[in-house]
Amino acid sequence: SYKFISSKRLEEVKIFFPDSKPVKEEPLSQARLFPRSLEEGLGFEYAMFHNQVENRTVCILQGGPYLQGIPGFLHGGAIATMIDSTVGMCAVLTGGAVMTANLNINFRRPIPLCSVVVINSQLDKIEGRKLFVSCNVQSLDEKTLYSEATSLFVKLDPK
Amino acid sequence: SYKFISSKRLEEVKIFFPDSKPVKEEPLSQARLFPRSLEEGLGFEYAMFHNQVENRTVCILQGGPYLQGIPGFLHGGAIATMIDSTVGMCAVLTGGAVMTANLNINFRRPIPLCSVVVINSQLDKIEGRKLFVSCNVQSLDEKTLYSEATSLFVKLDPK
Repeated sequence: SYKFISSKRLEEVKIFFPDSKPVKEEPLSQARLFPRSLEEGLGFEYAMFHNQVENRTVCILQGGPYLQGIPGFLHGGAIATMIDSTVGMCAVLTGGAVMTANLNINFRRPIPLCSVVVINSQLDKIEGRKLFVSCNVQSLDEKTLYSEATSLFVKLDPK
Repeated sequence: SYKFISSKRLEEVKIFFPDSKPVKEEPLSQARLFPRSLEEGLGFEYAMFHNQVENRTVCILQGGPYLQGIPGFLHGGAIATMIDSTVGMCAVLTGGAVMTANLNINFRRPIPLCSVVVINSQLDKIEGRKLFVSCNVQSLDEKTLYSEATSLFVKLDPK
């Protein structure tokens, strides 16, 4: 029951923040979704799948050579980016328009550049406007645990 | 007493992880430090300054149009990337070779795309091999608090 999610979906979540200054129009015309901003094969190569019955989102990721932190390994920020994207997708598909309020990541082991990993996320609970989503990042054979994370999303009031 | 830090310094921290599989050599030759992987003006435009007396690192950042999350605002992963880089720089310049073990970020308000922000980080304490570094992300006039974070770094044994 996994369904492929177009990455355009996140881009389409247009939300109005009444007390934030809007960006000038010119840079917005150039804007790209961050995880899709690097050329093919160099940055984030990923696909996400969502299980609507179990409220779980799975991401298969290969981090390319432009995502380096310590030589030979992914930058912590690149890992955080795909974790935020995956738990965010799980939250959006469960709760609609949401914003990340907290992200807490434990980095257990460095992820070799260009290796393929799986991010397994699930909705843990909903309390009012709060959605709690957690995930882990593992090797494809699930023998190596690279990272674990918890996150909190807050539903946005469309008014 | 702030000193400009070359971004090459982080790239030069070569660390050996004995039980991690090394990456094939070919992609390594293409490797780029993640926050420097996007073309000028489109991604992370930043400079860092370190105060060796107070163990503080300051980062001035302008996040370009390729770092978009929600339309018009920076992706949470882009914010996490520069937070990790800044607290990481503070930890490296204080403790030498280190690795991020934990990163805990509270996102208070979304950061408009192309705005300039300041990340102020400081070493809070050292316990054996553990370094605790915290930071906040504010507007240039320090009137708007965008994010706050705590982090834990572990010193790596060079053997």
